[in-house]
Order: sequence, then structure tokens, then C-alpha cells
Amino acid sequence: MALECGVHIAPLEIAYRTYGKLSQARDNAILICHALTGDQYVAEPHPFTGKPGWWSRMVGPGLPIDTDRFFVICSNVLGGCMGSTGPRSICAETGKPWATEFPPITMHDIVAAQAKLIDHLGVGRLFAVIGGSMGGMQVTTWAADFPERVFAAMPIATSPFHSAQNIAFNEVSRQAIFADPQWHDGHYRDFDAIPARGLAVARMMAHITYLSEEALSRKFGRRVRRDGATAQPAASSPSLFGEMFEVESYLRHQGSTFVRRFDANSYLTITRAMDYFDLAAEHDGDLASPFRSSETRFCVVSFSSDWLFPTSQSRLLVRALNRAGANVSFVEIDSDRGHDAFLLDEPDFDRTITGFLNGAAEHAGLKAGQI
Amino acid sequence: MALECGVHIAPLEIAYRTYGKLSQARDNAILICHALTGDQYVAEPHPFTGKPGWWSRMVGPGLPIDTDRFFVICSNVLGGCMGSTGPRSICAETGKPWATEFPPITMHDIVAAQAKLIDHLGVGRLFAVIGGSMGGMQVTTWAADFPERVFAAMPIATSPFHSAQNIAFNEVSRQAIFADPQWHDGHYRDFDAIPARGLAVARMMAHITYLSEEALSRKFGRRVRRDGATAQPAASSPSLFGEMFEVESYLRHQGSTFVRRFDANSYLTITRAMDYFDLAAEHDGDLASPFRSSETRFCVVSFSSDWLFPTSQSRLLVRALNRAGANVSFVEIDSDRGHDAFLLDEPDFDRTITGFLNGAAEHAGLKAGQI
Repeated sequence: MALECGVHIAPLEIAYRTYGKLSQARDNAILICHALTGDQYVAEPHPFTGKPGWWSRMVGPGLPIDTDRFFVICSNVLGGCMGSTGPRSICAETGKPWATEFPPITMHDIVAAQAKLIDHLGVGRLFAVIGGSMGGMQVTTWAADFPERVFAAMPIATSPFHSAQNIAFNEVSRQAIFADPQWHDGHYRDFDAIPARGLAVARMMAHITYLSEEALSRKFGRRVRRDGATAQPAASSPSLFGEMFEVESYLRHQGSTFVRRFDANSYLTITRAMDYFDLAAEHDGDLASPFRSSETRFCVVSFSSDWLFPTSQSRLLVRALNRAGANVSFVEIDSDRGHDAFLLDEPDFDRTITGFLNGAAEHAGLKAGQI
Repeated sequence: MALECGVHIAPLEIAYRTYGKLSQARDNAILICHALTGDQYVAEPHPFTGKPGWWSRMVGPGLPIDTDRFFVICSNVLGGCMGSTGPRSICAETGKPWATEFPPITMHDIVAAQAKLIDHLGVGRLFAVIGGSMGGMQVTTWAADFPERVFAAMPIATSPFHSAQNIAFNEVSRQAIFADPQWHDGHYRDFDAIPARGLAVARMMAHITYLSEEALSRKFGRRVRRDGATAQPAASSPSLFGEMFEVESYLRHQGSTFVRRFDANSYLTITRAMDYFDLAAEHDGDLASPFRSSETRFCVVSFSSDWLFPTSQSRLLVRALNRAGANVSFVEIDSDRGHDAFLLDEPDFDRTITGFLNGAAEHAGLKAGQI
């Protein structure tokens, strides 16, 4: 596969999972695109952590993305670390893992690799492409790069470009990884090491940006963790000495579990791909340009308290789609849970997905409840 | 000095600077409290960096905090690293620097140490106490702990408690420092080392929280840095490979200059003091309690785009002061520059300070323009 940067990668491996059955007409396939640290285990327990699939509340029999009706595909992104070609893979030229020498990739590369998978599965046109956060960047890129292959597109909690603030947070993540004594210039595996502390710091910081201030306050407030020998009866300020706030304990846990399942070089590669993302810039500043004459049906979704990918950024995409004459609906879900809301129990969001997919299925001539 | 945690510190050193002259009636002293990484060099060039004082646009002859009229005092906080007793100081018991053994301190301790300085300077009652961010926490604490010594108080861009989100950001900062190979369990000076990369990561992350998304976008957008051999003529996505976004370069600069002037153990000590801060919790949840019967005149100021210390947190303080029957005015300055706005050129803010100080001076019976 030829990447945008000019490097050729071969062989290309894309790890994926499917759920449900492809119809005889091959017209019921839905591609789900995962976010920065997601993977292909969207609707089944994760093989490493044993935790439920990251969107198991959304994808399955009778759920909004109904696997009794749709053939659902989810693949690990190019550059990832759950089986798809990425920094952990062997470089054919050197016979050693790519590590930091893995070439820079873009959303276009990630989507082009997925298109090869869709070819391989014998699907010409996807009924829908759906994804949140970086997954939404992929959805938008699919609609821009392969308009004839996307009947319906649902970019969720995302943006048509990565903002200065988001680039800034990603850069701090990267610097945290580089600062780790086990980083070894990216060749940590040669030393049987992982830059666990740096990667944990990166994850902890990112995790704060996934939640709203309200969600953090409601979940933890200023409660201190009381366990074992350090427990103190009084709650006044001095008794806090030596205690840990619950939010700290939670973040440390998030950081330490993350490093067991994610590769630092993949984190660097994928955050870079997000930072490069800017569809308008590729079209002389005209975001409408890639969507002119598109027949894809769009449903753009944002969440009111998402400050990482705020509604204003979704609106820019919606306005451009309107300028392009595309078929677009836009829903801002009222939620105080921040960016993560797209992964949580939000009934209005479930109804939005169900409604959009039902409407699109009707227009596509898909028979209801039948493969 | 006896700290809240029970530890006794002696001797206590407080480094300070003064500007202007104390009036014969000793009634024109203004104490300025600095923020997390500030210091006593409020209105003169910093001795290490050579940069102008951190509030030199606000404090000086003819400026809103007019040193022709007021006697301005600014001291380095207890726990700091610019001359006041802190982790770098020698512990009398061991004869070695405190380092990580420096006792945990609170805003009450910081303010109590300042009160000793004010005693030393022969000032009974301060005409005003003014400060932003963590400086505002000190202002509020001054008014709570020494109401009879504070004629006017101006807590700016601050909160009566440190929120879960702010604790979370501080915790990530601390973990970044701990992750540095040069941390040496806090005894880095014994190894002639400093945890520069970890401290830089902490500073970089904190810096993002000081700016609004709008300010970052306006300042940097998605511009890439073009200099030397890596400069490319085209601005399309692929040409970004190998480039650095301007916001990244800026953050790296912020991080690297910071480590030259700030001590990691001080950063840990002071961020902890901020995290402990919760005035209401110390009074059974009643934030009004410490201000009942207070005769201090308050002016609470927030900035509309400040997401680190949002207006909602200032409002909680204002409401409590109103419940307590205190004399309080509240101003939200319309600005899109985020938390840092209190340090920047904001004419409405200047007018607010001038107006409040003039009004208070009149009530205090200070003669205009005369010492």
C-alpha cells in the first residue's frame, strides 16, 4: 500500500471483526471506525482486558446498530497495535520492527487501508460508516474520498480539523512519552521495556479531556479515598495530608491499565494522524469542496458538554455539507458528560442512531428486519 | 512557625519586594499574592530571566495599582523557590535540604506566613489584598483568617475550592514529574540533576489550561513552523510530515524556560496546597460562615472564557459573601483569552481595579494622590 507520505508498505495487514451476516445483495454492511485508543473489539469482550466491547451497548442483536439486521465490520486502524500493520510490525526492508521508523500516516491512509478490507470482504458500497471522535474523522474522510461507496455517514463528536488546543494536548502526551526513561528513542522493545509511566501520564491527561468538568465533579467531587491505614475520621482540611483524592486514584488506574494494552509508538503515530487532519486545508480552505455532488446521507452528532470536540466544530462540518448541497441532518445531544458521552448510556443518542439508520435503510430499499 | 499539619518550621524566611512608600498613617499598603508559578518580582525585571515583572503592566507609577499612591508588597509564597522557606531550604533537624520531606502546607499556612511579614513591616491593616488564580485563593483566605486586617479584598479568576478537574490536572503534572528519570525520589539535587523533562511536561499541560481554545486558535491555529531546512513551499497535508505545528514549538519553549526558574519539589508542594483548598468544607459546607460580620469590601472578578476557574466558581463565592452580609461587588470581564486574561492587556479589567481601589480608598479616608 502506498502511503500519502510516499512510503510503500507491504504486506499490509488489517485486523478486523465482523458481527451479523452480509445480505445476499451485499447492501447491509456498516463499518464502525474506532477512536484513538479503540480497537476492533466493538461488540465482544476484549481479549486482553476481558472487558466488554467498547460499544457493546450500541452494537448487537436488537440494539441501535442491530446485528440481526446489519453486517457490522470493525477493524483496527492502520498504525494501531491490535493486529493491523503498525509500529510493532516487521519492516520488510530491515527485518526488524518499525518502531519509531514507522512512516507518518494520515486519516486518508487509515481509510484507504479500510477500503482494501471492504474490497476483500466483497462489499462494494457500505450502507453506513459510523464513528465517534477520531472515528468520526474517518467517517468524514470516507465520505470525502469514496463518496460512491458510502450510502450513509454518521460523524459523531468530531471535527473536520484538529484544533490548536487538541494538537497542544497531543503534543504534551508525546513529550510525556519521550521523557520516560524506558523510551529508549522508541526502541524500547529491544530493551524488553515499555515507557509505561510516560504513556500513563499521556493517558491520564487525555482522560481529563474526555470528561466534562461537571462529570468529574459529580463522579468524584473532592472526595478523598479512605482505605486501610491512612483512613481518618474527620473530613477537615488537615486530615487530607497523606490522603489521595478519588479523582487521582481513578486517573492512576486509568493510566496503569492503559499501558498494558496500548503501544507507545502507535500512540505517537495515531495522534500525529489526528493532528494532520484538516479537510478544508486540502481544498484551499473550502470544506464544502470534497462533498459537492455527494449523494451520501449525513447525520452529524455532537454533545453539548464536549469541550474536546465542541459543537461549534461539528457545525462547521454541517454548514460545509449544506453549502455542498449534501443531504445532512444535525443533532446536538444535551448531555453533561463531555466527550465520552458517545460511549455512555444516552437514550437520546440511541434514538438518533436508530432513527437515522431506519430512515436511511428505507431510502436504500433495505427490507426491515430481514437479511 | 507552626504549620496546619503539625510540623514546626524554624527559621522561617519570606522573600519579598516592595514598591512605593508606606504612608505615615501606615494605611496604604497593598499585598499582592502571586499565582502557582509566580514570585515576588511583580513590577520589576525577574533576576533570572530578565523578563519584566509578571504584573508590571498593572503595578507601577500611574498604573491601576499605583505605586505613587500605594505601598505595594509582594512576597514569594511559603513552599516556593525564590527565596522563601520551601523544599530547597535546609531542614534544621537534618542539616540537609527538605526536598520531598518538606511538610505539606495549606493556603492558611501560606497566608499566615505572609501575615508575619506584614507584622515585620509594621503594617496592622492592609488597605487591600489582591491576587489572581492561586493568588485569589490567598486573598479569600486572608479575608477569612484575618478579617480585621483586610480593608479591601480582590479575588480574581479564582475559586473558593479546587475542583475535581483542577485536582486531576495537578495530579497529571505530579505524575509527569515522578516519571522523570532525573527525579531520584525528589533528591535530584544530591545527584546534581533536575527532573527537567517531567517538569516541562507539567508546565506544558498547565499552560494549555491557562488559555482558551479561542486564544490558542487565534494565536497559532494550525500553522506549521517554517524555518531552516525543513521549510516546504506547499501547505497541503503531506508537506506537514517532519514539520512542527507552531503551538507545539510554543509549548516546548514554555516548558524548557520554566524548568530553569522553578523547582520541582516546590511545584509539588504548592499544587498540593491548591488541591487541599476548600473553604466551605472547613465550615461544615457553609462558605458564608468565615465571612459573617466581616467588614472587608470585596470585589470578585472572573473572566468569561476562563475554563480553569470558571465564572460559576466565582459566583459561589459571591453568593456566600452575600449570604454573609458582606460588602461585595462582582464583575465578569468579557474576554476570550481564558484564565491568563488577568495577566494580559484587558482595559475593562484595568478600569475595574482602578475603580474599586479608588472607591475603597475614599471609604478608607485615604487622601487622593498623596502619601
